[in-house]
Amino acid sequence: MRALLVTDSLIHLRDALREFAAARDWDQFHSPRNLATALSVEAAELLEPFQWLTDEQSRHLPPETRVEVEQELADVLLYLVRLADKLGVDLEQAARAKIVRNGEKYPVEKARGSSRKYDEL
Amino acid sequence: MRALLVTDSLIHLRDALREFAAARDWDQFHSPRNLATALSVEAAELLEPFQWLTDEQSRHLPPETRVEVEQELADVLLYLVRLADKLGVDLEQAARAKIVRNGEKYPVEKARGSSRKYDEL
Amino acid sequence: MRALLVTDSLIHLRDALREFAAARDWDQFHSPRNLATALSVEAAELLEPFQWLTDEQSRHLPPETRVEVEQELADVLLYLVRLADKLGVDLEQAARAKIVRNGEKYPVEKARGSSRKYDEL
Amino acid sequence: MRALLVTDSLIHLRDALREFAAARDWDQFHSPRNLATALSVEAAELLEPFQWLTDEQSRHLPPETRVEVEQELADVLLYLVRLADKLGVDLEQAARAKIVRNGEKYPVEKARGSSRKYDEL
Repeated sequence: MRALLVTDSLIHLRDALREFAAARDWDQFHSPRNLATALSVEAAELLEPFQWLTDEQSRHLPPETRVEVEQELADVLLYLVRLADKLGVDLEQAARAKIVRNGEKYPVEKARGSSRKYDEL
Repeated sequence: MRALLVTDSLIHLRDALREFAAARDWDQFHSPRNLATALSVEAAELLEPFQWLTDEQSRHLPPETRVEVEQELADVLLYLVRLADKLGVDLEQAARAKIVRNGEKYPVEKARGSSRKYDEL
Repeated sequence: MRALLVTDSLIHLRDALREFAAARDWDQFHSPRNLATALSVEAAELLEPFQWLTDEQSRHLPPETRVEVEQELADVLLYLVRLADKLGVDLEQAARAKIVRNGEKYPVEKARGSSRKYDEL
Repeated sequence: MRALLVTDSLIHLRDALREFAAARDWDQFHSPRNLATALSVEAAELLEPFQWLTDEQSRHLPPETRVEVEQELADVLLYLVRLADKLGVDLEQAARAKIVRNGEKYPVEKARGSSRKYDEL
């Protein structure tokens, strides 16, 4: 019966971040614009350790790089969840809808093995 | 009893993206480096509609901008989930751990109402 | 008569970076893709100190932030010059041509005092 | 004697952008924060065409991609010059100083053929 009590991860994170900001009186800084900026900065910090790696090297990160990357992944998710909350966007629903749209843009039979953009297929 | 059958959103998205890539033979393009690059590009596309707005304007987006932003939020989440999967990172656990660490870095009594970095408090 | 001996700044930087890379055998790492990635990472580092500032605060940076920002500006320029060189692009000519195009896209009489995009004017 | 009359490229661009903004009453939008955001967005647009390319492919861009990249390079330079101007930074001097500092951080004998960070040498 445990699952009945479990909150979905994205909802849990959203609520935890609401509490975190409220306790620090940080809602005043969390305009969508500020959050979108912070998200973009974190995404670049996540990209930074990969910038001189080959694709193959990026598949086998040294342990200390992996720890760093894991924390940057978390930072991006936290700002993303917070920004979506401030904009009243249901992240999970938006992501599911996007997968459906991508399926239409990149039909299996045309997209197989090609990284070209859908309009170039 | 419904909850017993529900998959967590991040797990659901991870599995849907695995299927999506497998059906198109796209795993070959999904090196961590490529995905981190694509994530960063999407984060900038998410920032783009905010770049000339004031904080206040960013809180009240016109409907068509909001639709665009919702899709960019979804894109960022999809690449984030995919990248974490390729690196073997449990996104939810990483995000929860980061909130705990942030709580230690920004103690409520010192951080209240200040956007300064923790090491400047 | 001194000016006769002066090299244009963008040319001077291009040549200095060529020498720098050659002396370190770094051309092998300077693929356009790597350089474009590094440039994007540096641009985000330049954005980072501004992310929680108001527009007004960004006009009056504290001295230590200004020093940091100056170095990030330099980093962006260096990668930009290097990337253009690797692609065989004449940066100055490209920038002049872009100003001309922008003048056509944003005619003075329509653009005055508006930050809206040209296609929304 | 022609060189005596030539304005340095970075100074020329700075002045052209001053005129451009003044004619459109755009200085009000050109806060350092806004410009740093726009610069970062443009840097990601420059990265976008490279995101699924191998290093080798990025060295041989198709003609239409090269044209697109050239315009993005120009956009980055224009925002960079404008931001530096608004902050009162001498871009050329900052870039030259940075090359000197980089030469100290990455001494030829230790850096040759390695893309590792200087503190890991």
